[in-house]
This record gives sequence, C-alpha cells and structure tokens, in this order.
Amino acid sequence: MRTYLDCIPCLMKGALEMARLVDGNEIMHKEIMDEVARMLPDFSLGCSPPEMARMIHKVMERRFGDKDIYKSIKKESNHKALALYPRLKEKVQSSNDRLLTAVEIAIAGNVIDYAAKNTLNIEDEIEKIFTNDFANINKTIFDYEHFKDDLIKAKRILYLADNAGEVVFDRVLIEEIPEDKAIIFAVRDKPVINDALIEDAKECGLDKRSKIMSSGVDAPGTVLKYCSKEFLEIYKKSDLIISKGQGNYEALSQEKENIYFLFRAKCPVIAKHAEVGLGDIVLIKANHNECKSIIQ
Amino acid sequence: MRTYLDCIPCLMKGALEMARLVDGNEIMHKEIMDEVARMLPDFSLGCSPPEMARMIHKVMERRFGDKDIYKSIKKESNHKALALYPRLKEKVQSSNDRLLTAVEIAIAGNVIDYAAKNTLNIEDEIEKIFTNDFANINKTIFDYEHFKDDLIKAKRILYLADNAGEVVFDRVLIEEIPEDKAIIFAVRDKPVINDALIEDAKECGLDKRSKIMSSGVDAPGTVLKYCSKEFLEIYKKSDLIISKGQGNYEALSQEKENIYFLFRAKCPVIAKHAEVGLGDIVLIKANHNECKSIIQ
Repeated sequence: MRTYLDCIPCLMKGALEMARLVDGNEIMHKEIMDEVARMLPDFSLGCSPPEMARMIHKVMERRFGDKDIYKSIKKESNHKALALYPRLKEKVQSSNDRLLTAVEIAIAGNVIDYAAKNTLNIEDEIEKIFTNDFANINKTIFDYEHFKDDLIKAKRILYLADNAGEVVFDRVLIEEIPEDKAIIFAVRDKPVINDALIEDAKECGLDKRSKIMSSGVDAPGTVLKYCSKEFLEIYKKSDLIISKGQGNYEALSQEKENIYFLFRAKCPVIAKHAEVGLGDIVLIKANHNECKSIIQ
Repeated sequence: MRTYLDCIPCLMKGALEMARLVDGNEIMHKEIMDEVARMLPDFSLGCSPPEMARMIHKVMERRFGDKDIYKSIKKESNHKALALYPRLKEKVQSSNDRLLTAVEIAIAGNVIDYAAKNTLNIEDEIEKIFTNDFANINKTIFDYEHFKDDLIKAKRILYLADNAGEVVFDRVLIEEIPEDKAIIFAVRDKPVINDALIEDAKECGLDKRSKIMSSGVDAPGTVLKYCSKEFLEIYKKSDLIISKGQGNYEALSQEKENIYFLFRAKCPVIAKHAEVGLGDIVLIKANHNECKSIIQ
C-alpha cells in the first residue's frame, strides 16, 4: 500500500508522541517536528507508510541514539497480555471451532497498537473477547475457509508479528496449528514504536512452539527491501504467511505470495484501501481484489 | 492563546482538506502540503493558531487566487440555519429565562465549524437544542450571572462573529439584548475557511438589529494586529465584547478587555487551555483565571 496524503499529518502526530515519550522539553520537540517537516517534500507517496515511519524513526535515532522509547510500554503490554493468557486458552478450549476462535483472538490482540492514532480503548476492546460484543464486530472481509484450507496444506509457515503484548494473542493461534507444521515467528530487528522484538517474543513464550527470528527490518512493517537475506529466503520458501497488523499489511498488501493479513482496521486510510469498515476485524488474502474478480 | 505542537498536524490536515475542496489533483495537493511543511520551521509557537492558519491560507491564495473555497458550504449553512430560525425563536419564547436560552442557542450554533477537526455531528448537535440532550452537555465554566450583569450595564456591545450559518444563532441572542444598547456585529474581511463574511451576516438578517462591519482580519480569529484601525477604535470603546467561537478565543484569550467567550470546546488543546472538558458548552470571561484567583 502506498502512502496517502492523509498519512502525513498522522505521521507528524506520531513523531510528536514519540518525542514526548523521551524526557525532553518543548523546544526539542519542536526541533524534531521541524526536521520531519523539512523531510516531507522529499517523501515519495509511492513508498509505503512504514517506510515513511522508518525515516521519522531515523530522525529520532539521530537525536536520541538507539534508545528503546516504548520499552516500558512494551513490557507492560507483555505482562498484561500474559496475565490474560489462561483466559484466552479457556476461550479456545470451550469453542466449537477452536481454530476460528484462535484466529479471532489473534486479531483481537491487534488493538495493542501505539502506531495507530485511533480511539479504540485497548482494555475495553480486549475485554470484548470474553463477551458477546466481540461477535458483533463487523467482518466485511473474513476469508476463514480459504485460510483454513491453505493452513492445512502448508508445511512451512511464516508468522509476521506486529506489537509487543499482541504476540501473546498470536501464541494462542500458533498453538492451534497442527504440530507437523514448522512455524517461524518473525519480529522487527530494532526498536520501532511498540513493535515486538526477539526479547518480547521470548518473554511471551513464542519459542515454545515456533522458532523466533528477526526479519532484519527496522521499520514498523515488513518492508521487503530492508529485510535480511536470511529472512527473505524463508519468506520465499514458506507455504503460508500469516501477517499480523496494519504495518505489515501496508508493507505487503501488493505482494503476490500466499499471505493472509490479520488485523483490526484502526486507521480510516487502511480501512478504505482494504475495502472494509473502520474498526472491522479483517482476515484478508493478498491480492484479494484480483481473486474476487476471478471468482465473480 | 499560543500555538501548541499538537496544532501542527491539525493545521496540515486542514490544509489538505482545503486543497481537496478545490478541484485539484493529488500532485497539486502534495505540492501544497510540501509548501506548508517548508514553512513550519519558521512558525513561532508564540503566535496564536489563527495566525498559523492565516499563513497556510496565504499558501492557498498564491495557488488559487482569492477563491472563496467554502462558499457553497457557507451558503448551505446559512440556508439550513435560517430554516431553523423560527424553531429557535419559539424555544426562546417558551423559556423561563429567555436570555439564558438565547446564550445557549448561540453557543449551540458554534458546532457549524469546519476549522475544528472534531467528530461532532453538526445536525445531531443542533437537534439537541430541541431536546433535553442539550441540557445534559457539560458546562464546567459557564459564567452566566456575571455576563448578564455586564450586559445590563453595557451601552456599546461588540459581537465578534465566527462561522457562516452560526450567525443565525447569534441573531437569536442579539435579538434578546435590550434595544437601548448599540450592537456592532464584526465579521472577517476575506474568505477564510467557513468564517462568516459581510454577505453571510446580511443574508442571515444580522443587519436588522446590529450594525455589520468587517474587522479587517483575514485570519480565522480576531488577531488584533491584522484588524483595521476603524475596528480597533470600536474594540477599545466597547463596554462589552461577545466573542464567538474557538478562533476568536485563540486570538483574544490573553486580552484584558471586557470580553466573554462563547463556544463549544471541540478541540482538545483549546479545552485544556480553557480548563474545560472536550465537548463542553463554554461561557468564559477573558482572564478568568486571574478573576478566579481574586475570588477564591
């Protein structure tokens, strides 16, 4: 997905929020905003939003070094999500369709997103998993049957993680995947917003059923041109890719691989691009529009 | 009120919305965003947000000439508000405190605001005037008794208008002011967002009870340094100033004149500055914080 002009004020808002998380003053925050503003005319709308966000992160890096700005927020998210893990497992165990419930839980976890400038309340939204409210969230595009078929056929599965904390919800889905499948769980290489790193995946127990690796990427989305060679080999060899979150959708929506995107549509631009409603639960296959035109 | 860093993404969003209202293409919109971005490092946070908005409007002017971008929106607002006028008058006539109801109506009209990037639905909010819902909107600061006292004493009243359409609601308040008072109704000098001009005030019948004039300002707020000499003389000689809307509050909140600000707090930055809640109905005297410290 390319960048739309609506993304620009949103990216600036994100830069300000990040700057404020570091213990700085307003003059310094203004300098960061100014630096981002000076870069904007050179931004190409042909790039995806995570590429833009990466450039903004480079401004932060030059100012603050490689400080992990969201570290305490990520730890808190991990701890809160781990505390929910037994209840999430119970929910799956009592379900008539365990895989479906696990998919829904994984998508529900995608509200733990500090990159999305949305008004969804994380605690409230997660609590919905345990009530009937969750079933009432719109699913304009929810391609579960194809996903299930492709999952059964796949031998090598690549799972692209999104945020810290959210990875606990991913773990619940991963644990429902038959044990004969090899699963690689890929996270970001460096701190970027609240995206999960190797340490988060380990803390949340993802190493129990999958192999954790870094994609090599320092953007808040799996932008292929920044991925490591090692990761790209796995990416190409995988039979099925489960891509979590808006950032990975933005980075990969144009790809033709066997990718399923799982996310909550929290941003109006992404919702429009994916042809779903704002707030929707989405399970969508890459190039779904092409598929649709063949099917119809 | 000075500009806060949160205002910058909001101002950029406003620039994009304005550019899109003109029949242009995305490349042109990007050029406008780029030009605004290049100006940002020279913006001083000491200026008020309407001064910033004025600079952005100058970018539009250089590109589009003095085209009245919101003209059709303003006309529509005027017509819709005029259609409501008889119902608004009935509401006042059936009230136990006619002035209070008229003040509330004038503030209710302040939702017709295309500068505020808020989620208030104009039609829904106005309909609340005719139901009990309006009485339930918070009034953290609503200094009606002092306003009433000062209004009774005043001989020369200056009323600073805000938006087209909204001026019909102002007319309802103005018509409740005793006839021995001279009222001047001041509007913007040039098109800026959907702010009322002389033609809007005339179309909405403000000339029946008040004298309409331009403040000389081409910003979306009465920024004194851009006002005409003629207006400034009236401003200084007035016994009471009724200032409508967020833009006039932003421009004049630091002044020490006998000003009452009437607005709906639609912007979180303004709400915080005025020490009220987002969405509140506000009737607040200039330098109210100073007043409060003397009273307490």
